[in-house]
Amino acid sequence: MTTTSDPTTQAAAPAADRPETAAAPAPAPAAATATTGPARPGPRIDVTALHDSLLGRWPQWRSAARAHAAEPRFWKDESLSMAEHRKRVLAQCHQLAEDPRHQVWLGFPERLGGGGSPGANLAGFEELAIGDPSLQIKAGVQWGLFASAIWQLGTPEQQDRWLPGAMDLSVPGAFAMTETGHGSDVAAVGTTATYDPDTQEFVIHTPFRGAWKDYLGNGAEDGLAATVFARLVTGGVDYGVHCFYVPIRSSDGEFLPGVGGEDDGLKGGLRGIDNGRLWFDQVRVPRENLLARYGQVAEDGTYTSPIASPGRRFFTMLGALVQGRVSLDGAAGTASRIGLAIAVRYGSVRRQFAAATPDEEVVLLDYATHRRRLIPRIAETYALHYAHERLLDLFDDVFSGREDTEDKRADLETMAAAMKATSTAFALDTLQECREACGGAGFLTENRITSLRADLDVYATFEGDNTVLLQLVAKRLVGDFGKSLGAQVTTPEGKARFVAGRAVDTLLHRTPLRRAAQTVADVVTRPGAVFDVETQRALLADRVAAKVEAVALALRPARKADPVTAQRIFDRHQVALLDAARSHAEQVRWELFTEAVDATPDAGTRTVLGWLRDVYALTVVERDLGWFVVNGRLAASRARALEAELDALLRRLRPHALDLVAAWGLTDDHLRAAVATGAEKARQDEAREYYAAQRAAGTAPQTEKSARKSAKS
Amino acid sequence: MTTTSDPTTQAAAPAADRPETAAAPAPAPAAATATTGPARPGPRIDVTALHDSLLGRWPQWRSAARAHAAEPRFWKDESLSMAEHRKRVLAQCHQLAEDPRHQVWLGFPERLGGGGSPGANLAGFEELAIGDPSLQIKAGVQWGLFASAIWQLGTPEQQDRWLPGAMDLSVPGAFAMTETGHGSDVAAVGTTATYDPDTQEFVIHTPFRGAWKDYLGNGAEDGLAATVFARLVTGGVDYGVHCFYVPIRSSDGEFLPGVGGEDDGLKGGLRGIDNGRLWFDQVRVPRENLLARYGQVAEDGTYTSPIASPGRRFFTMLGALVQGRVSLDGAAGTASRIGLAIAVRYGSVRRQFAAATPDEEVVLLDYATHRRRLIPRIAETYALHYAHERLLDLFDDVFSGREDTEDKRADLETMAAAMKATSTAFALDTLQECREACGGAGFLTENRITSLRADLDVYATFEGDNTVLLQLVAKRLVGDFGKSLGAQVTTPEGKARFVAGRAVDTLLHRTPLRRAAQTVADVVTRPGAVFDVETQRALLADRVAAKVEAVALALRPARKADPVTAQRIFDRHQVALLDAARSHAEQVRWELFTEAVDATPDAGTRTVLGWLRDVYALTVVERDLGWFVVNGRLAASRARALEAELDALLRRLRPHALDLVAAWGLTDDHLRAAVATGAEKARQDEAREYYAAQRAAGTAPQTEKSARKSAKS
Repeated sequence: MTTTSDPTTQAAAPAADRPETAAAPAPAPAAATATTGPARPGPRIDVTALHDSLLGRWPQWRSAARAHAAEPRFWKDESLSMAEHRKRVLAQCHQLAEDPRHQVWLGFPERLGGGGSPGANLAGFEELAIGDPSLQIKAGVQWGLFASAIWQLGTPEQQDRWLPGAMDLSVPGAFAMTETGHGSDVAAVGTTATYDPDTQEFVIHTPFRGAWKDYLGNGAEDGLAATVFARLVTGGVDYGVHCFYVPIRSSDGEFLPGVGGEDDGLKGGLRGIDNGRLWFDQVRVPRENLLARYGQVAEDGTYTSPIASPGRRFFTMLGALVQGRVSLDGAAGTASRIGLAIAVRYGSVRRQFAAATPDEEVVLLDYATHRRRLIPRIAETYALHYAHERLLDLFDDVFSGREDTEDKRADLETMAAAMKATSTAFALDTLQECREACGGAGFLTENRITSLRADLDVYATFEGDNTVLLQLVAKRLVGDFGKSLGAQVTTPEGKARFVAGRAVDTLLHRTPLRRAAQTVADVVTRPGAVFDVETQRALLADRVAAKVEAVALALRPARKADPVTAQRIFDRHQVALLDAARSHAEQVRWELFTEAVDATPDAGTRTVLGWLRDVYALTVVERDLGWFVVNGRLAASRARALEAELDALLRRLRPHALDLVAAWGLTDDHLRAAVATGAEKARQDEAREYYAAQRAAGTAPQTEKSARKSAKS
Repeated sequence: MTTTSDPTTQAAAPAADRPETAAAPAPAPAAATATTGPARPGPRIDVTALHDSLLGRWPQWRSAARAHAAEPRFWKDESLSMAEHRKRVLAQCHQLAEDPRHQVWLGFPERLGGGGSPGANLAGFEELAIGDPSLQIKAGVQWGLFASAIWQLGTPEQQDRWLPGAMDLSVPGAFAMTETGHGSDVAAVGTTATYDPDTQEFVIHTPFRGAWKDYLGNGAEDGLAATVFARLVTGGVDYGVHCFYVPIRSSDGEFLPGVGGEDDGLKGGLRGIDNGRLWFDQVRVPRENLLARYGQVAEDGTYTSPIASPGRRFFTMLGALVQGRVSLDGAAGTASRIGLAIAVRYGSVRRQFAAATPDEEVVLLDYATHRRRLIPRIAETYALHYAHERLLDLFDDVFSGREDTEDKRADLETMAAAMKATSTAFALDTLQECREACGGAGFLTENRITSLRADLDVYATFEGDNTVLLQLVAKRLVGDFGKSLGAQVTTPEGKARFVAGRAVDTLLHRTPLRRAAQTVADVVTRPGAVFDVETQRALLADRVAAKVEAVALALRPARKADPVTAQRIFDRHQVALLDAARSHAEQVRWELFTEAVDATPDAGTRTVLGWLRDVYALTVVERDLGWFVVNGRLAASRARALEAELDALLRRLRPHALDLVAAWGLTDDHLRAAVATGAEKARQDEAREYYAAQRAAGTAPQTEKSARKSAKS
């Protein structure tokens, strides 16, 4: 087992040297196909340069994964039954495990053959969704959850024992955290692991039906072991949820004694994954099977932990598994790009209804409503991308160990929650919009979008339900606000801490959390002000600050209230909490988009990306227009003008739509949608030629109107 | 073939008299199961009475159809392959055809065994989606499109010739209108039907690939004939699109000479329908196969039509087929009710996270965010329902021949377009929200929602793309506005016509289209004003009037402009056009909801429905809040208060959520979602009992915190 995290080395070693991998380097985006018609005046995107910059921090790894995804062996085969699809996806996972590049091992410790590069690993992972989201998630279960639990929650000795089997897939594993009765509220799972000092074993037990482990990938068929989350009980004390390595099936696939379960059966999507349920009837595992990085039980049953606070210990353990959320955020971007690339390519050739020119129908993207449906989503997808790249950075900083501080971990978790909760929702809406923008053709499986959307559906609720995640984000924001208040009113040292805290914040926000509303209101009465970067920044930053402040102040009385009153106060402001979290996510994305625009070297590309960032800003303002006006941030005259201003921007971006989509580097083999890869264009050309030939030959029938005219004359 | 449209007769004949139909009468809604916990103070819904009133104008037919849908033989079987599913749905259609009630014939002329009751027919049709949306749509293709084309576009002689085979399904048929190249723009289809006077035949021909008929139910396998829409060419003149009866397969299922096609293959949903493509290579059919109600060709090739204007003739033919849109609006309501019933039932028992009471977790529906997700959608579903009932009335008035006037037809078409375009979009969003509100369980096929959503997906683009339909609606509104202006500035007679026109309008709007903005702005500064019915009416009516007026005035210059300029002006305002149409649909629904509230006899029910109507009104205002504030219709203070006011309403409605859902009369056999029909409740009860028993026996482990405390003391 050897591999390396150095992408340069990988790039230098051509794929052809390795006959066992068919992966050709990802083809450069065809800038030529992205340009339509005659040369246009004005700024142009340097498609190749933009594509290369979008490959991000680990370009070779991302390219390699994309090349994998373009290989037919990794494509979703829509014709398969559930049973066949599951077999295919398991086989694909084995191919990933056996691939000599070992991209899926990149995140693991180098001493075990990994690459020590968790960010590069995820950059590749999220591209797997191009092949088949079932593959991404099945691989995510094996390497991102099951193996990661061993890696993150186990001691080095435990890693040495169990990681190799998890990494090379000789031991497919389930990540047995969620129960039928408890998903979001992991702390309340019912499964128990009771220590028996007489035999030095833990007894894993499922006390009732609601405590069955549920929805587990590798649970129904393939898993031989599971990382089981259960309440650790020793000496009559419940030390909260811990993770245990539990063998569940013998190598012939039969359940081990005391283990049982059932198949989750058909799902709305991701049918290539064998999700299932597990239960344990007094199953004994050795004391050493407690993954013991954050809590250990001595032979005599004494519990010790490096983290004294049970709450902090629990959240540290959960936080160690944040990579799932990070990779779903990435996959949400991947899926959005596929949908938009299909819809934009189709919308650029499909014609419907004649307008100004009687013989030529209008291309869909030349309709104002069609531009409205797609171009703001292109903009938001770019915003998603830049924020995701920052998230990968943060993730790599922490999980490579380079900057593994408590603050960084907290930032990472907050950002992952904010991004995942909003990007997965965005991806579903976007895929639906793209499917409808392709009309009936969009509904055909051969055009891909419905299948992709069905697979992505569950991204909204797994790895943290989006509603619950937004609440986590909001609570963090409210907490930060509380700290800042405290800091402001106490000592100079306190003040400094507050400022330092804000500096971390600034990493994401690039602007202090609070900003006087007055400034904003003054600015945004001027026509055209919304195209000003500082105005946009002020509008978006101030909105978050105002919303967080309002909800924080409203929640203050809850701190000293009895539980029932506290709950009632919370209930009154829960909707506002989530709203603040969403606004925060939009602000973060706008900041990182803007940073990327500023860092773009090519002037033409920078100009067009700037317009696209403006589209994102105006879209965000428009969907919360009521808030901005009601709260005096935007003059009514400016608000009234917004729709026309946005439409004008979209017209300006219309000629760049194909370029913006081409820069994503998705080839026909990635899109695999007949309607977007030539079929529609061929049909349009054929029809046009038919009518032209008819006119030329004089064989076209007269219209009724002109026949009547001739009859009269 | 005998049947009757009198529901009373049907009701008097118990299903048991007919052993060949297993249909039991639809069970009355279980008001008992809808009530939770101890008696509550305040108004209560009379669930049975509300249920009965919701059955609408043809209660027995709707009940009978719902009873059908509760029979396992009509359920979607999720385990089937596409081929098996298609077979099952065809067999189900045969069962419908053979059912002695002949509900699917209700709309056809009585002389052919129909019931002459088109409204009753549709009321039943839309309930078929409860069994399997593929069944609804396959039945819709056969009876609603193929047979209806013969009925609506054929002469009585043609009806006598072809309707019986279409009605009894001995001739399954395809409705061959859409082409790969032209969906929404039917006028531009490429297929030609050229008259050959020498043989007195039409030659049906597909000139290029884009003119293949596409997405046709019964197209890939089952169709023996098709109603083919093609441009009628005779004597070198193109008389526009007409419909032809064309045999396509022999009884052994082989294509007839000159006919070919292919299977559309897998789709995102509705996999029980054999959608396919057809092409014609100089296929000859007798002159008599032109469905000749609106256009005829004499033996010598002379074309005549009762409608001189080619445009009006075309739209009259298309308008005759409006019933598809009406029934999709109904099915969108049906699907929304299923999704909401599942999510509300689940949300009423599912618990997650402890709050005020440490031993008892909070029921999902007791979270403010969960109420926000579901209760406004219950309100909108009621609004959908009442508007749909009016649409059925209109449809029955016109298609029974009782009030078949041009104005009524125009009203019907506008209302069908407005309702279908917005209700199908709403249904998709609602099903997604419901699926997510059920978490991971919602993603399992056994809980129904993902499957239903996949089937409903295409409702957004077939039978008229929603974007195109909204544009039709907007153009009608703008046209009416133009007429009203003209009327106002001319003669007293003109004025009268304008007023009369508004009277028709009033049928839908119940309020004049225009209303001074001043009035509204005055009203809506008062706290609580938004709960006032007249204020709501003013806000919603005035919004439509203002938007229509603005866009109508903006479009005026286009009338006298050259085509390119006209197109440019139109492009500037297309987004606003669609926005106006959506606002119109909301206003219509609000009016009809309000009318229904006022007509509710039971005081408690009326009160609760009134709150629900307020929820609908506030939701509509909230999602366009920017418009209301920017345009001076709502004071900023009122706008700011709206969120809290809506939340308060939702809290007030919370105890009625199950009743509101129970009144829909959906039984466990209709819902067929384990998670909503007892499984979750049983699990919650079991877990609660387990922990209670543990506490009672004193065997519950201590918490870490309390163990530490004891250790210290």
